[in-house]
Amino acid sequence: MHTIFQYQEFLSDYLQSQYETKEPRNLYEPIHYILDLGGKRMRPVLTLMSAEVFDADYKKALPAALAVEVFHNFSLVHDDIMDDAPLRRGHETVHEKWNLNTGILSGDAMLILAYQYFEQYEPLIFRDLAKLFSKTALEVCEGQQWDVDFEERTDVTIAEYLKMIQYKTAVLVAAAMKMGAIIAETSVENANLIYDFGLNLGLAFQLQDDFLDAFGNPETFGKQVGGDIIENKKTYLYLKAVAFSNEEEAQELKSLFSIQPEDNTDKIERVKALFNSSGASKATQDAIQDFTFKAFQTLDKMNISTEKKEMLKAFGENLMGRKV
Amino acid sequence: MHTIFQYQEFLSDYLQSQYETKEPRNLYEPIHYILDLGGKRMRPVLTLMSAEVFDADYKKALPAALAVEVFHNFSLVHDDIMDDAPLRRGHETVHEKWNLNTGILSGDAMLILAYQYFEQYEPLIFRDLAKLFSKTALEVCEGQQWDVDFEERTDVTIAEYLKMIQYKTAVLVAAAMKMGAIIAETSVENANLIYDFGLNLGLAFQLQDDFLDAFGNPETFGKQVGGDIIENKKTYLYLKAVAFSNEEEAQELKSLFSIQPEDNTDKIERVKALFNSSGASKATQDAIQDFTFKAFQTLDKMNISTEKKEMLKAFGENLMGRKV
Repeated sequence: MHTIFQYQEFLSDYLQSQYETKEPRNLYEPIHYILDLGGKRMRPVLTLMSAEVFDADYKKALPAALAVEVFHNFSLVHDDIMDDAPLRRGHETVHEKWNLNTGILSGDAMLILAYQYFEQYEPLIFRDLAKLFSKTALEVCEGQQWDVDFEERTDVTIAEYLKMIQYKTAVLVAAAMKMGAIIAETSVENANLIYDFGLNLGLAFQLQDDFLDAFGNPETFGKQVGGDIIENKKTYLYLKAVAFSNEEEAQELKSLFSIQPEDNTDKIERVKALFNSSGASKATQDAIQDFTFKAFQTLDKMNISTEKKEMLKAFGENLMGRKV
Repeated sequence: MHTIFQYQEFLSDYLQSQYETKEPRNLYEPIHYILDLGGKRMRPVLTLMSAEVFDADYKKALPAALAVEVFHNFSLVHDDIMDDAPLRRGHETVHEKWNLNTGILSGDAMLILAYQYFEQYEPLIFRDLAKLFSKTALEVCEGQQWDVDFEERTDVTIAEYLKMIQYKTAVLVAAAMKMGAIIAETSVENANLIYDFGLNLGLAFQLQDDFLDAFGNPETFGKQVGGDIIENKKTYLYLKAVAFSNEEEAQELKSLFSIQPEDNTDKIERVKALFNSSGASKATQDAIQDFTFKAFQTLDKMNISTEKKEMLKAFGENLMGRKV
């Protein structure tokens, strides 16, 4: 097994080795640009890690890992258009740096390129990977559509919100890990268990992201703390706070989530106080614990060495232990 | 073998049988909407026809044919956004009827759905179809990017223009036919020959579209006659006219293709006169003949019955004989 840092290096080297000067440049330059912005590359790292957990050489998993990364970046390029986002990882988004059409078309090309990485595998593995990928990619689109729909709705339930983040975020983490299992040709049981491990960890991760968006340390979080509150995003924290509050405080929350003041300082402070006093903060932390625990439970049933199980658990604890 | 009308009926029935009420509705309704606008469904018809030419049941080719049609409609939805087009087949475009985000996201989902139709084939055929599809889809994106790039350029060559329409239009016609061959499990030679047949027919078809855009009968053409001239589109006709003209007339053409007058009547008439007097109209009709002849030449080498060859030739003549 290797460290996360090593996996990131392997991916970076492999990515660079794949670049060729392809025409038309206006189609391919934005693709290289967004991929080179980096990020933690958590999803493809998980594909490599999973392949090694099931005793395959990580090298065999590099094309699939890159497919996952290219798909993830496709979804960022198109989501940034839909959210009208000017910045991604501290740099201009593709549609800002170029234009709307380039953002759409380069994104489309990335979705196709992702499929092409699977062509390096033999037919049976190719089909399993492509099928899993299509199912996952469609779920990510559905999740994005739910997210868009929820902006206009005031009756979103906790169950609906969890389904949305499952589709929009967690299924790709799950699929990234299952791809490693497919490439390693482990048992169907193991492949399904690592999928469940990834799914629950992905849910825990997204809920933690929601939590840190409100309560993270501004110096290390990377994004603007309070961003979800400013944008009136109905996250798990908000939905739980409304559910747990009395009539009066629920009304206050709803009215706070309908305004867009010039200066958000007071709004953010008041919302955070209500998140805490209502018990929503505690409930969110409990949910993060629950999903993490559920992920770890799948390890018990997995047919791999204790050492490998400890490694996966350590990875999960490390991921969830971030206090940023 | 069946008639084109029969193939269209088979496709329509199959398409309807695939619809299910899937959530989120805002993602799937636009997909059904654009697919139900119809059109001639020429590309999927060619997939069914090709399967029968190589002695397979057309029914076996239905999923691949639908993949081709769904992909084609994906490209229309995203192209209509890029061209800011209000109408498609006489109805509102998806981004007009819904909004930009719906257009992007429904298009993305269609690209993924197209891949999923191939899952109904066994692993080896699945891989051949998916590989051909990815290669083709990427070429269509590249063709679209060339098309966008050419709008800003004044030095586009005839060779570049032909490459652009090959990628943007002809490769999908070619791939649609090759898919029928793959499904019928005919020889690699036959599969490559039908690809070349489709490619040359596709080129002839697009050049004819350029020609009819200027010289077609307004009552039957379906699109606004002169549309390319109004939009200053540098088609084959224009590029040939500039190449064949003396310095003075070439300058006149270039200046006509830099203006956007309120009333286009005079501009259209003058441009058409120059297309004719320069010999560009004749050169375009010759090129259409050449590509059609090239398509028919591939039939000589194909290992199928004379009757099937005659049928494919009749289809080509019918397609090219349209005077609309």
